[in-house]
Amino acid sequence: MTIRIAVAGASGYAGGELLRLLLGHPEVEIGALTAGGSAGSRLAEHQPHLLPLADRVLAETTTDTLAGHDVVFLALPHGHSAAIAAELGPDTLVVDCGADHRLTDAGDWTRWYGGEHAGTWPYGLPELPGARAALADAKRIAVPGCYPTGATLALAPAFAAGLVEPDVTVVSVSGTSGAGRSLKPHLLGSEVMGSASAYGVGGTHRHTPEIAQNLGLVAGERVRVSFTPVLAPMSRGILTTASAPVRPGVDIEAATAAYRKAYADEPFLHLLDDGWPATAATLGSNAVHLRVVVDADAGRLVAVAALDNLTKGTAGAAVQSMNIALGLPETTGLSTVGVAP
Amino acid sequence: MTIRIAVAGASGYAGGELLRLLLGHPEVEIGALTAGGSAGSRLAEHQPHLLPLADRVLAETTTDTLAGHDVVFLALPHGHSAAIAAELGPDTLVVDCGADHRLTDAGDWTRWYGGEHAGTWPYGLPELPGARAALADAKRIAVPGCYPTGATLALAPAFAAGLVEPDVTVVSVSGTSGAGRSLKPHLLGSEVMGSASAYGVGGTHRHTPEIAQNLGLVAGERVRVSFTPVLAPMSRGILTTASAPVRPGVDIEAATAAYRKAYADEPFLHLLDDGWPATAATLGSNAVHLRVVVDADAGRLVAVAALDNLTKGTAGAAVQSMNIALGLPETTGLSTVGVAP
Amino acid sequence: MTIRIAVAGASGYAGGELLRLLLGHPEVEIGALTAGGSAGSRLAEHQPHLLPLADRVLAETTTDTLAGHDVVFLALPHGHSAAIAAELGPDTLVVDCGADHRLTDAGDWTRWYGGEHAGTWPYGLPELPGARAALADAKRIAVPGCYPTGATLALAPAFAAGLVEPDVTVVSVSGTSGAGRSLKPHLLGSEVMGSASAYGVGGTHRHTPEIAQNLGLVAGERVRVSFTPVLAPMSRGILTTASAPVRPGVDIEAATAAYRKAYADEPFLHLLDDGWPATAATLGSNAVHLRVVVDADAGRLVAVAALDNLTKGTAGAAVQSMNIALGLPETTGLSTVGVAP
Amino acid sequence: MTIRIAVAGASGYAGGELLRLLLGHPEVEIGALTAGGSAGSRLAEHQPHLLPLADRVLAETTTDTLAGHDVVFLALPHGHSAAIAAELGPDTLVVDCGADHRLTDAGDWTRWYGGEHAGTWPYGLPELPGARAALADAKRIAVPGCYPTGATLALAPAFAAGLVEPDVTVVSVSGTSGAGRSLKPHLLGSEVMGSASAYGVGGTHRHTPEIAQNLGLVAGERVRVSFTPVLAPMSRGILTTASAPVRPGVDIEAATAAYRKAYADEPFLHLLDDGWPATAATLGSNAVHLRVVVDADAGRLVAVAALDNLTKGTAGAAVQSMNIALGLPETTGLSTVGVAP
Repeated sequence: MTIRIAVAGASGYAGGELLRLLLGHPEVEIGALTAGGSAGSRLAEHQPHLLPLADRVLAETTTDTLAGHDVVFLALPHGHSAAIAAELGPDTLVVDCGADHRLTDAGDWTRWYGGEHAGTWPYGLPELPGARAALADAKRIAVPGCYPTGATLALAPAFAAGLVEPDVTVVSVSGTSGAGRSLKPHLLGSEVMGSASAYGVGGTHRHTPEIAQNLGLVAGERVRVSFTPVLAPMSRGILTTASAPVRPGVDIEAATAAYRKAYADEPFLHLLDDGWPATAATLGSNAVHLRVVVDADAGRLVAVAALDNLTKGTAGAAVQSMNIALGLPETTGLSTVGVAP
Repeated sequence: MTIRIAVAGASGYAGGELLRLLLGHPEVEIGALTAGGSAGSRLAEHQPHLLPLADRVLAETTTDTLAGHDVVFLALPHGHSAAIAAELGPDTLVVDCGADHRLTDAGDWTRWYGGEHAGTWPYGLPELPGARAALADAKRIAVPGCYPTGATLALAPAFAAGLVEPDVTVVSVSGTSGAGRSLKPHLLGSEVMGSASAYGVGGTHRHTPEIAQNLGLVAGERVRVSFTPVLAPMSRGILTTASAPVRPGVDIEAATAAYRKAYADEPFLHLLDDGWPATAATLGSNAVHLRVVVDADAGRLVAVAALDNLTKGTAGAAVQSMNIALGLPETTGLSTVGVAP
Repeated sequence: MTIRIAVAGASGYAGGELLRLLLGHPEVEIGALTAGGSAGSRLAEHQPHLLPLADRVLAETTTDTLAGHDVVFLALPHGHSAAIAAELGPDTLVVDCGADHRLTDAGDWTRWYGGEHAGTWPYGLPELPGARAALADAKRIAVPGCYPTGATLALAPAFAAGLVEPDVTVVSVSGTSGAGRSLKPHLLGSEVMGSASAYGVGGTHRHTPEIAQNLGLVAGERVRVSFTPVLAPMSRGILTTASAPVRPGVDIEAATAAYRKAYADEPFLHLLDDGWPATAATLGSNAVHLRVVVDADAGRLVAVAALDNLTKGTAGAAVQSMNIALGLPETTGLSTVGVAP
Repeated sequence: MTIRIAVAGASGYAGGELLRLLLGHPEVEIGALTAGGSAGSRLAEHQPHLLPLADRVLAETTTDTLAGHDVVFLALPHGHSAAIAAELGPDTLVVDCGADHRLTDAGDWTRWYGGEHAGTWPYGLPELPGARAALADAKRIAVPGCYPTGATLALAPAFAAGLVEPDVTVVSVSGTSGAGRSLKPHLLGSEVMGSASAYGVGGTHRHTPEIAQNLGLVAGERVRVSFTPVLAPMSRGILTTASAPVRPGVDIEAATAAYRKAYADEPFLHLLDDGWPATAATLGSNAVHLRVVVDADAGRLVAVAALDNLTKGTAGAAVQSMNIALGLPETTGLSTVGVAP
């Protein structure tokens, strides 16, 4: 089986990571690589680490250049995927790494992103209850945001088992690649190195409603989410600390049992018994390292999750979801081995 | 006025920062520098950045070498300061950067640090209500922990004004110098760089009761604290994200007013109106950059504070407190200007 | 074909990288993992990124535990490999990542490392003229040092083509993982981050004679080498700047032609036409990115090479050499794709 | 004495560092702060670390806004200072941090920077023979480039004492702030962190002729310079490794004696006897840490120098030179104490 794929937005960080993974995927043949302003340039200018594709020339992102592929990955700014998907036809598998089709509530979409809601696609977080069924045979997939992936996986088992109150605090420490290759002063190396900084504080980050949606789905009730992203001086990685008040009688044994049960058969979720997750151990891998604990003094369950924002947080989830949609073994082309130190 | 000072533990990070600040303090003359295992070596081996003291030889940390100074700073492991202070006599100002005399509750001390409680000294966080009065003319000062400094300053105005419930979540992202010059594998550059990692999760970090004590003092009731420290790939800096449920009717205007009132005359506390705190802006300075917001959806007040863990978080607080105790202008030898980028 | 391998020194950085690569090698089965002081502990304590081997327990490094494997990789301190190799017998392929068998001159060995010379093994730098022939069917392989790999590959084509005088200057900027997991103060994250520092200046680094040996072999005459290593705040990567006086009439065209000819068929050597090598593009890959130029004003040929010190600089070279020795395709289990950004 | 100063280019990194130092200068009053595109904004938007000036509003860089100050510091792009200096009149001390007036040879200027040469100003490297005399009472000062400062100070004593041949190799590892706050993809944190990269290789960097000019002046003959800059993942700091062939009979004693003699009375130059320079020890200070050695095998003298590119490499040199020109003690407002770790 040879799956012919295209990547729209191949000059960006998400596009580069998709290509890195797809170069190692045994069933895939890499077709068109497209870009916006960088169309016409060699891929090596933007992705010098992808030697086998160094001399590929970026095409314009148009329906024509993307047509004729089995799978089209979209790594584009918000608001661009609906129109392209419409023209690609129902037989092409379209995997959208952008936000356009993640939220189920049209009002949420308009409030957080502005404009009209483009509809909801099957959600590419297979570890969420019910997600695999929706992804099987799907022709449209919405890849989750990187922060929602960490926060959701950190607390979903607690909500599934009814261990906590629906009142969540999440602080996620992220590397800078999550912001993409945007030329903004605060993303310059000179500003980033040696500094930790908050942004989008107070529930203003667009990933907030996506976290609430995911946890609410598992909890079966509305979950309030206080989410704060923090930028740390590293290129990759998200370390999520998430907590919620425990319900009466919930102790560490109950918490551990719930997480073990939830993730026993998950190929990419790794529960730690000792030590605490560190993002370096997940670099370039599709694994999530997690640990849960109950703080009896504070009355809270606290879970910490580490992942690579570009891999499991974006491109790895996209490939994992593609595998499911195409009926391939879910782990094809993906690794649980990080590059460390 | 010339104040003759000594520093015990001059080969460590806290000791080095004390000396950096004291070299710029106009009223101070630097006397004995002492160490444990490094006694007998030149200071330049350990603190190559302190050129004016490069050829000083470290003495052993004994009562003899420390005697005869107006002020003795102790940057020692836990459990060493009480005995030394007892022998130094009541006329010497002893400023303890360790934890021995911070906690007021003997039971807390025994639970968190083990052994017998050595008593409580005036607490070197002048911005805390009542602290300046206790520091004036003090002969013994307990310098706060670096995490408690950030967490306390982030939420004290909210508790002072009765804006929040006593149920606090704190996640603090710290540089590695907070762990001192300990030769532990997880502190090696190869492990730290490119990685964010949690530790002391679930209320097990020893700074937790100190945060609860400080906020409880301001709130006038017991405050529950869920505290998670996160190690980030930088040498210095702590970025604290702290939140608590808001009481009915509390909005951003009320929060802003409370913080402005609390910190209006504080020389080292800087409230931001736009942008968010970044630790780089505080590097080497005694300033704390703060911002507060109310997240109506989540029902929480969220405050973010940035500081330099070695300066305001340790050595700067020590010098600031010494200034108060000696009747000097509080800002002598301290700066609000960071070294950036 | 299933090759059963063992790794001695599996708890260190070189051992970890060997295992990372071998986990992705299709012909390999991972047998014994051994260590010194860490024997008896789980691999996950030392290598949390190697999830598939997390529960493996480290055995003691003895001839017994290493016996019965087709290939034994030694990632041990200097001076340990000869004795082990002697007991493993002539049919086992022993790949030594240490320095013991790299130098051909016994006097050089004694001068630089001390003690008696253990003999010379085929040298695991296949790109060096004649090296592949020596590696084919070899049962003993000496993996090159990480600095010599960069410096040799940077200048070998210039010497092979007679373009330069045998008077070489090399400055190599390295990440800290090259120093291994040694608990030394100058390798602590707090010291390393934000700092570049030289060490082993003035021809005192032990890799100096190895560079001179390699280039002398290609040049057919003695080559003088001034080598300076510089530590930079990153975990991985070596960026080598190497230069030598050009002989009369040598210009950029001659240099480019010589390098193209030398490396035309090399699967892991990538010549850049524009842009300059950056180590990030090689992270985790076995590729070397190079560019050469002639500075007419200074009268020197300057070559810059980037590689990952743990991959092509150590473990990747080991696997590449093993592939040759076993008659496997040379690139099996190795990649030219880096993990970036 | 109160010196009223203005800074043109106050929103950039060099401008920010000038202001950081001038805030601590006891004889200075800070007047106009000007900028180009950022005129009209608060300084805090660009320099959040300069709290005492947070609410200053940036004026346009015009002769009008700069007039009426005793000293005007120019931190502007190349080619802008001559016109401004002409209009400021001969009584204003103009200190140019740009390159316009560094090179003495008009042909060099045109070749390396293009356009017409604006003339040569007294050169702000007081440690260079004869420089202090030229700076005394000067009304125009050209601050050296950051790389030339390190390379010149590393080798000047060797040339002054006739120890080496005029054939120099320099590799300088620099933090990213040397490139200013330019919004270029290769300066983004995501690209910089974890990577060392060369640029301007082969004698193409514009600082090359300035290094040759300085060393040639000391040597009394033309000096050939092979210069390679390397970008490392840190904000500040330059570590320079410079070498040249030793003349017959030159050994380490001769080299050490020459350097001791040259720098015995220099307040900012610090010769190390053991250990090697690290940039972290110079952070924020005006000190240069140096060490020299002779490599008998390679036949070269090798000197390593560490400095802070924004302090001694730019703004510190500017303040030091201003002090000389105004007859103040040379070290006023400057420190040899770095901020570490």
